[in-house]
Amino acid sequence: MTDIGFHPIVLAGGSGTRFWPRSRKARAKQVLALDGERTMIQRTVDRLGPLAAPEEVWVITNSLLSDTICAQLDGIPEGQVVCEPAARNTAPAAGLAAFLLERLFPDTVLGIFPSDHVIADEPAFLAVIEKAIQLAAAGENIVVLGIQPTRAETGYGYIETGSVYADGVLRVKRFTEKPNQERAEAFLAAGNYFWNSGMFVWSARTLANAVREHLPEMAPLLEQIVAAWGTPEFRQVFAEVYPKCENISIDYAVLEPRSAKGEQKSNLYCLPAHFGWNDLGSWAALHEHQVEQKIADEHGNVAECAGSFMLNSEGNYVFSPKKFVAMIGVKDLVVVETEDAILITPRDHSQEVGKVVKELVERGRKDLV
Amino acid sequence: MTDIGFHPIVLAGGSGTRFWPRSRKARAKQVLALDGERTMIQRTVDRLGPLAAPEEVWVITNSLLSDTICAQLDGIPEGQVVCEPAARNTAPAAGLAAFLLERLFPDTVLGIFPSDHVIADEPAFLAVIEKAIQLAAAGENIVVLGIQPTRAETGYGYIETGSVYADGVLRVKRFTEKPNQERAEAFLAAGNYFWNSGMFVWSARTLANAVREHLPEMAPLLEQIVAAWGTPEFRQVFAEVYPKCENISIDYAVLEPRSAKGEQKSNLYCLPAHFGWNDLGSWAALHEHQVEQKIADEHGNVAECAGSFMLNSEGNYVFSPKKFVAMIGVKDLVVVETEDAILITPRDHSQEVGKVVKELVERGRKDLV
Repeated sequence: MTDIGFHPIVLAGGSGTRFWPRSRKARAKQVLALDGERTMIQRTVDRLGPLAAPEEVWVITNSLLSDTICAQLDGIPEGQVVCEPAARNTAPAAGLAAFLLERLFPDTVLGIFPSDHVIADEPAFLAVIEKAIQLAAAGENIVVLGIQPTRAETGYGYIETGSVYADGVLRVKRFTEKPNQERAEAFLAAGNYFWNSGMFVWSARTLANAVREHLPEMAPLLEQIVAAWGTPEFRQVFAEVYPKCENISIDYAVLEPRSAKGEQKSNLYCLPAHFGWNDLGSWAALHEHQVEQKIADEHGNVAECAGSFMLNSEGNYVFSPKKFVAMIGVKDLVVVETEDAILITPRDHSQEVGKVVKELVERGRKDLV
Repeated sequence: MTDIGFHPIVLAGGSGTRFWPRSRKARAKQVLALDGERTMIQRTVDRLGPLAAPEEVWVITNSLLSDTICAQLDGIPEGQVVCEPAARNTAPAAGLAAFLLERLFPDTVLGIFPSDHVIADEPAFLAVIEKAIQLAAAGENIVVLGIQPTRAETGYGYIETGSVYADGVLRVKRFTEKPNQERAEAFLAAGNYFWNSGMFVWSARTLANAVREHLPEMAPLLEQIVAAWGTPEFRQVFAEVYPKCENISIDYAVLEPRSAKGEQKSNLYCLPAHFGWNDLGSWAALHEHQVEQKIADEHGNVAECAGSFMLNSEGNYVFSPKKFVAMIGVKDLVVVETEDAILITPRDHSQEVGKVVKELVERGRKDLV
């Protein structure tokens, strides 16, 4: 444990459709064991264990997932699994946590963590977070974790860094939205751009003040909710007031305007991180991660099945835990079987799975989404 | 009904592995409903209905399949579902039927029918069979049904025909084994070659005499079995004697040597048939047949599922009757799901499915074969 107060805020409201048919509204990616025996959110909390006991963890989620999350996370007090009455992106969720924790633990440092990413090198992860906590505790500093890019990815936002602040700490020049291919390639070549991991560390006070400064309409709404915390009216106030908050990300609402102050004045710092991060944005990304983790066979097949026979087949991802799966002459395919559905798609089309969910919604197949 | 005695002999001993994972040793192709609601053997008997009542049908099968066949075929007396004590190809099976029927109905005509082929145009089929029965009843004639080839198929034997005997009846010159590609193309171009359908019509006496002539060692064994028919010793005699019969096809054992007598003396006749025949030799053949039957969608997908969504997908065959199946960007694939297994293979590899069964046998997975 660190001797500075530290509270992880795990954001678990996502209703991920990217892992359909395994993921559903009430069984989102974060509560699935996509990679190993523990679920994504269990592993998120597990890996923070050396820095924060479960009693210090807060989770922001929705009512469809909260029961499952409470069942999965031993030791987290139920009151710390907060259900948003409406989905409102990361700014209200992180802001709410900041106002609440500022009231309960005025000097604590918060870490904002997505609940559905994998991190291969946990000791490296912990070392970076400890450094971030020290930096965040030292003043009005906002620390963002930047991932060293390994390809010209167009699916992520990027952090442009400027001068060196300290060993392993860079000043942030600018946050960018998802770039097109050409810009992504330029970012990769430039060397001072990092993927925005969505992991931030700052004191509760710094984040609350940032919300007051950059979201002057949202701040009083969040203060009103926090004022009701612990009273019999809390649930009603929360349900009435929270949906009035703007639906906006913390990056767009707070970090981008803050960076406009210039790298010397913004107090924005990037810690470049090298800990085998993968946000598992698609079945293809999961396959790629499992190949890196050496879970695949010698032909790049990952088969989570009750036995398999892969004849002249390579680069496939198969999930069908109760069945024997035979493939003959198949390349680079994703096959996922659940109790009620099967998905079949080439790996390089697997990011289109959201279209299936959209179609099912249009057909009124609530049973399948 | 025809006024000449006619008994269909349905050969149903095959242990087809080509439709794995649906087909298993005890659930061979002939007892599956691959194409429609009725099973292959049910449809075989159904389509003969106008020519033979179920009480006139005999089935030769094995003990793994006989219970299922009896349950599927209403009206066939149980004693007429004969279980071979050992698999011995078509010559002993057809020969046994000939000796037995010759004893029970000395003047009857037999039709030998595989139990696992599809025939699209049933009226045309019945017309050909009626003609074959007339011809077979008129003397020591052996009538074979030849299918007009539509491609240079190397998987079938061919019948080379000679001169015209009567309207729609050709004399047979020769039977050939499965040709190589070059010969198959020459056969197709020549115009007087027909696929050997495995359907034959001849009187019981003609077939029994042909076995006596061409299989002098097998004939007394079959006579010994038939002599025990109806006695308490039958089962034991059958079990002891039948396995001594040579494992050989009727084509190779009887028809080929008979054709060597020359087309004027062999009494071998071919009826060219045009009734949408398909022996469904693979998942690909089933798909092709269903496309011809207009069961596919406009993109050539056949999906036997509890709902499907085919996005940018074409030419696929999917069987998963209880599940919703989504395909994205998939072409020409076979996907078959059963209670315990899934097969995935491109259509043009689907004839290799026997390799999966072989592998499963080697692994001792009796539950899956």
